[in-house]
Amino acid sequence: MEEIFSVDKLREFTINTFLAIGCSEADAGLATDVLIKADLRGIDSHGIARLIGYVRLWEAGRINPAPKIKVVHETPSTAVVDGDSGLGLIVAPQAMNIAMDKADQVGTGWVSVKNSNHFGIAGYHAMMALERDMVGMAMTNASPLVAPTFATERMLGTNPIAVSIPTKEQPPFVADLATTTAANGKLEILQRKDSEAPYGWIQDKAGNPSKDPHELKNGGALLPLGGDREHGSHKGYALGSIVDIFSAVFSGANYGPWAPPFVSFLPLSENPVGEGLGHFLGAMRIDAFRPADEFKSHMDNWISRFRSTEAIKGKKVLIPGDPEREIEAIRQNDGIPLNINVVEDLKSVAKKLKLEQL
Amino acid sequence: MEEIFSVDKLREFTINTFLAIGCSEADAGLATDVLIKADLRGIDSHGIARLIGYVRLWEAGRINPAPKIKVVHETPSTAVVDGDSGLGLIVAPQAMNIAMDKADQVGTGWVSVKNSNHFGIAGYHAMMALERDMVGMAMTNASPLVAPTFATERMLGTNPIAVSIPTKEQPPFVADLATTTAANGKLEILQRKDSEAPYGWIQDKAGNPSKDPHELKNGGALLPLGGDREHGSHKGYALGSIVDIFSAVFSGANYGPWAPPFVSFLPLSENPVGEGLGHFLGAMRIDAFRPADEFKSHMDNWISRFRSTEAIKGKKVLIPGDPEREIEAIRQNDGIPLNINVVEDLKSVAKKLKLEQL
Repeated sequence: MEEIFSVDKLREFTINTFLAIGCSEADAGLATDVLIKADLRGIDSHGIARLIGYVRLWEAGRINPAPKIKVVHETPSTAVVDGDSGLGLIVAPQAMNIAMDKADQVGTGWVSVKNSNHFGIAGYHAMMALERDMVGMAMTNASPLVAPTFATERMLGTNPIAVSIPTKEQPPFVADLATTTAANGKLEILQRKDSEAPYGWIQDKAGNPSKDPHELKNGGALLPLGGDREHGSHKGYALGSIVDIFSAVFSGANYGPWAPPFVSFLPLSENPVGEGLGHFLGAMRIDAFRPADEFKSHMDNWISRFRSTEAIKGKKVLIPGDPEREIEAIRQNDGIPLNINVVEDLKSVAKKLKLEQL
Repeated sequence: MEEIFSVDKLREFTINTFLAIGCSEADAGLATDVLIKADLRGIDSHGIARLIGYVRLWEAGRINPAPKIKVVHETPSTAVVDGDSGLGLIVAPQAMNIAMDKADQVGTGWVSVKNSNHFGIAGYHAMMALERDMVGMAMTNASPLVAPTFATERMLGTNPIAVSIPTKEQPPFVADLATTTAANGKLEILQRKDSEAPYGWIQDKAGNPSKDPHELKNGGALLPLGGDREHGSHKGYALGSIVDIFSAVFSGANYGPWAPPFVSFLPLSENPVGEGLGHFLGAMRIDAFRPADEFKSHMDNWISRFRSTEAIKGKKVLIPGDPEREIEAIRQNDGIPLNINVVEDLKSVAKKLKLEQL
C-alpha cells in the first residue's frame, strides 16, 4: 500500500521537522535536500522513510541539531573533521566542501569525518563534485549488520562507496553501491512484502544460507558482496573493511562492531573506540590529470561505447546512475510514493513535534 | 604436475631474462622483484608464469625495455605519467614513488599512468607505501575479458584494486582483489585440471551461466564480482569501470574494450583511444589524518577484534593479506612450485634468449 505525495509537500514537511528539532534554516534545507534526493532517485530506504529515525536519535540525545563542525587536523590535501554529533546529512556536505576546496588548491582533497551520524545516500555527497568538474567520492561506515566471510557475528555496516565522474554531453557516471550483496533497504522491501530473499543475501545466526528476510531479527546477518567465499565474499568483506578504516580509523570515529546503531532503541557501546560514526569524502579535479574538456570528451566516448555493448537478448547494458536518473525524472513530475507504514510514521512525527500533518 | 625451485634460482633466471631483452640492471632487478613477489604470495598466475608473455610482447615490439618514463602533467597532489611503452612492472613502482613523494609534500599523492603494460600484482605497488607509513592504493585496467551485467561482449579487464594499510604490532592489512567473481588466474588453474567452475564465475557466448572453464576461448566471458544481477554483479561492473576510468581516462590510456591484450598473438586495436594500458596509484600519509602512532594502534585493535570474530564452526575469520603472508613464509623457505607447463615455457625462453637453463 502506497500513497503519492508531491515533492514540494514532502520537502516542506521535512524542513519543518528539522526546524522543530532545532536545526537552523540553512541546515534544515540541506538535510531535507539530501533526504528527498534519495526518494527522488528511488532509494526509498534512505529518504524520508528515515526521518522518524533521525527524530528518535535526537530524542535520545544522540544528535546535536546545532553542531559546531570543525577541522581538527589537516594538510594541504587532507583534513579530519569533527562533526560534533551533528546530522550526517549536514556534516557530510560540509566535509565535501572542504575536500573540494582543497582540490581547488592542490588537485585533490580527502576528508575523514568523526563524531557524525547517518549521512543519507552516499551518492548525494559524491555528486556535489560534478558541478565543480571534479570526481567525487563518498563512503561511510554504518550500524554493524554484516558478517565477514566465515563469521557468524555482525562486524561491519553495509558501508557504501559512491563515485561520481563528470561528462560533457552524456549524463554523469554515478555509482553508489553498498559493499554487500544487497543493501539493507532491499531487504526491508522484502520484509514488508513477506517475500523470500535469494540465497547469498543473508545468513542465519549459525552462518547458514537463508532466504528469510526477517533473519536479522534473529541474530542473522547481511552478507558481503559476493555472498559466499566461492563467489568472492572475501572481496566484499575487504571493500567494506576499507570503507570502515578510511571512515573511522583515519578520523577517530567508532569502527567495526563499535559503530553506533541507527536505531535509537539499541544501546551505544559502553567502551567506544572513537567518537560517533565516520565518513570519508574525496574530490579530484579532473584537470589535475588532463585538460577538463579532453577528459569529458573521453568520458562521453566511454559511456556511449559501454551503452552500445552487445547484450543478452531482451536486455541492455546500463551505465551506473542510469536507473536512478530515470526514476528521478519520473518522480520529479509525478510525485513520490510512500509506503503506508512510512506515512504512519510521519503522522506520529507531526503529532510529536506539533507540526501540520502531511 | 609441479616442480619446486628455490627463490634464488628463479630470481636469477628472471633477472637474466629481463637483462637479455635489454632492461638495465636496476630495471631487471625491480621487474624480477615484482614477479617473484606474486609467486611468493601464492598468486601463481601473475608471477614467473607470465615471464614468457612479457618476452613475447617484447618480440612483438610492444614493450620498450629501456623506457624514458616521465611526468606529463601535474599538480601538488597529482601527476600523469607516460610509461613510454615500458614494462608495467617497472613503470608502476616509479609512478608509486612519485605518488609517495607528493604525499610527503601535501598529504596525499595520486598518479594515473598511460602507455604502460601489465604491471604484475597490484598488491606489490600498494605495499610499497607501508614502509613510509602511508596507505597505498594500486589499480590497473587490463585485457578485456569481462562482460558487464546483461552483456554478451567483453568490455573490461579483471581490473584489480589493492589497498595496503600500515599497522604497529599486527601484520599490515593488504587487500588485493580483482573486481570479478574470480580472477583469471583461478580459471587458469581449473583449465589445467579440467575441473568445473562454480556458476557465477563465467558465462558462455550468449550470456548463459556456464561451468566450463574453457568458455573464454569460445567467446564467453568472466563475470563481475556478484556474478549476476540478483547477487550484485552491477556493483562489480561499476567497480571495474571506476578502475578503468581512473587508470585510463584520467591518464589518456586505452580504456574498456580498447585496452591492449596481454597475449601478443591478439592484434592491438586499429583505432586506439589512448596510449597503451593504464594504472592508478595512490598514497596517503597516515599522519595527514592523525598521529601515525595513534592510527597504527587503532589498526592493531581493528585487526585483533576482527580476527576474534565469532566464526562458523570449523572456520576462522581472516584479515585481508593473511593467506598470502602465510604462503610467503612457507615458500620463502621451501621454494616455489611451478606447474610443468610453466617450466616448459621457461625452457623455451632460455633457448630463445640463449640463457642458462633453469
